[in-house]
Amino acid sequence: MIKDRVRTEAYRAAIFQHSDFIKDKVVLDVGCGTGILSIFCAFAGARKVYAVDASEIAIQAREVVKTNGLSETVVVLVGRIEEVQIEEEVDVIISEWMGYMLLYESMLSSVIFARDRWLKPGGIILPSHATLYLAPITNVERYAESIDFWRDVYGIDMSAMLPLAKQCSFEEPCVESITAENVMSWPETLRPIRCYANTVDRLPSLSSCYRIFTGMAGPLHGFALWFDVKFSGATPSSSDTQSGTWLESSLSNGSHVNGMFQKVKHARIADEIILSTAPEEAPTHWQQTILYIYDPRDVKQDEQISGSITMSQSRENPRFLNIHLEYKCGGRCYVKETVMR
Amino acid sequence: MIKDRVRTEAYRAAIFQHSDFIKDKVVLDVGCGTGILSIFCAFAGARKVYAVDASEIAIQAREVVKTNGLSETVVVLVGRIEEVQIEEEVDVIISEWMGYMLLYESMLSSVIFARDRWLKPGGIILPSHATLYLAPITNVERYAESIDFWRDVYGIDMSAMLPLAKQCSFEEPCVESITAENVMSWPETLRPIRCYANTVDRLPSLSSCYRIFTGMAGPLHGFALWFDVKFSGATPSSSDTQSGTWLESSLSNGSHVNGMFQKVKHARIADEIILSTAPEEAPTHWQQTILYIYDPRDVKQDEQISGSITMSQSRENPRFLNIHLEYKCGGRCYVKETVMR
Repeated sequence: MIKDRVRTEAYRAAIFQHSDFIKDKVVLDVGCGTGILSIFCAFAGARKVYAVDASEIAIQAREVVKTNGLSETVVVLVGRIEEVQIEEEVDVIISEWMGYMLLYESMLSSVIFARDRWLKPGGIILPSHATLYLAPITNVERYAESIDFWRDVYGIDMSAMLPLAKQCSFEEPCVESITAENVMSWPETLRPIRCYANTVDRLPSLSSCYRIFTGMAGPLHGFALWFDVKFSGATPSSSDTQSGTWLESSLSNGSHVNGMFQKVKHARIADEIILSTAPEEAPTHWQQTILYIYDPRDVKQDEQISGSITMSQSRENPRFLNIHLEYKCGGRCYVKETVMR
Repeated sequence: MIKDRVRTEAYRAAIFQHSDFIKDKVVLDVGCGTGILSIFCAFAGARKVYAVDASEIAIQAREVVKTNGLSETVVVLVGRIEEVQIEEEVDVIISEWMGYMLLYESMLSSVIFARDRWLKPGGIILPSHATLYLAPITNVERYAESIDFWRDVYGIDMSAMLPLAKQCSFEEPCVESITAENVMSWPETLRPIRCYANTVDRLPSLSSCYRIFTGMAGPLHGFALWFDVKFSGATPSSSDTQSGTWLESSLSNGSHVNGMFQKVKHARIADEIILSTAPEEAPTHWQQTILYIYDPRDVKQDEQISGSITMSQSRENPRFLNIHLEYKCGGRCYVKETVMR
């Protein structure tokens, strides 16, 4: 993941943007991995950085810190954040905790724990906000190669394979890259997470209704999920009570050009750094997560698609996420049940 | 795999090339999958095709056969070839049995069983021959992105990560695509398999010595394995006692141009169909299998690399292949031990 330049450069930029705050302060890096974010914080002037990771990669991180002559500043602790003993409270928590679709194998609960246990009043959390989005998508090429392919295979009618092909291709959520051309509407904000305010017991489950108006006609092939995170170092303020980072834009405002949803300008503080995994942004290792439906539904422009999505921890395996998606279009209701394993 | 056009079109071409032989005859398709090869045989005029597969995909294959009005000709049998009861002996055995690196999860032993149990004297096997190749490779880009990357990560010396990076990237065989530019010598034929002559007890183990002369200087990063199969319908002849399909070419014959090993013309019967997974050919889903070494060795042009390779069924899991590779270059001997899982 360190090779994901978009990710690493967003974190680096955010750290240096907050160097006035970080200078001579104490930082806690939750899930430090190779230790790169801790080292960036040391470069930004931190007096002390506690780099914590439960994985054995922390042993390598300690070597990396040593090689770079930072052993005095960066203290690597191998263990779960809930169990390690840190010598002092901290001014800054930094963490790259986001999983696929934000919530899959996310470490947010560790960040929340660290905040409640170790963050001084007035301390900052980077990133400070995260938002999960949902949008209907069309993907004719993907459907053609996975499904339509079987209708005529070297002149042979293999449509008997269609049920199996649909199951193999689309039963589970697909982590893959789409483009802005695939997205049929403005995204709906499903889950704004304010790291200063969130409590653990609301995670990682999510239940949200949505209502979307399509900006283009075409076959609906599924729904995409993606997220962004913001690095607002400011401590909790009234702005934290607002949800979402997208401007409310009506479809008639002219931003929808040639079937493409152009990048929406965020209602953001000047120079606020955002790491976005949206289809129209530079690709990241998170890509997008697509919930494909087995049979495309033709939708018109300006058609309403509404429904709800629920994500909850699987009882089978706490790592897994059960997803229950309902969508209503063309006057009919449909359900997609799936598990992200 | 049916989407691998190179594979499917080679089989189709081979079937139609042998349509004079197939017409009004009985065919056995070992591991029929979706049934596509069986249907091609029906199109080529077979009187009866027995399509056998142990997997439940055979149930779909039966539906495909029905949809295409071929239920009278193509009889789909769900079961292991060693257990199904076929009503008669057959004139033709067709099978797509090749695994990665030819031998990994190969179904050759099922083909050999079918030959000994069901093939009439004078019957044909498609494909008739298979050959496994080995060649040293250089892959500076792959090594740089997997290993050298850690030497300077956003200005941080992360060389402490190198041992872990080498293990993660190169411990196991990698199925990936290289090009002719990566290949440092003519390939060595490791294992010519004559489907008319082979016996089961020699498979899937393999032990072979090799001696190669490099055609270019550069860092040796590992060894590539690939294979080809030939569709010589002719029944066993003296030519079956010859091994390999590549012309013996000295490196001084001028075919080695600009560091690229050009396609070698096979010493082949006119119009003989060959399905090749070599780096210089159109890509297939088999790609090539690369055994990377942890530390590159600089080799000169015309340098000898010699050694041995042994592949044997794992005791841990019969599906796994243990690979023991020895290579000597620059006067020193090295060993790579790995498992293909």
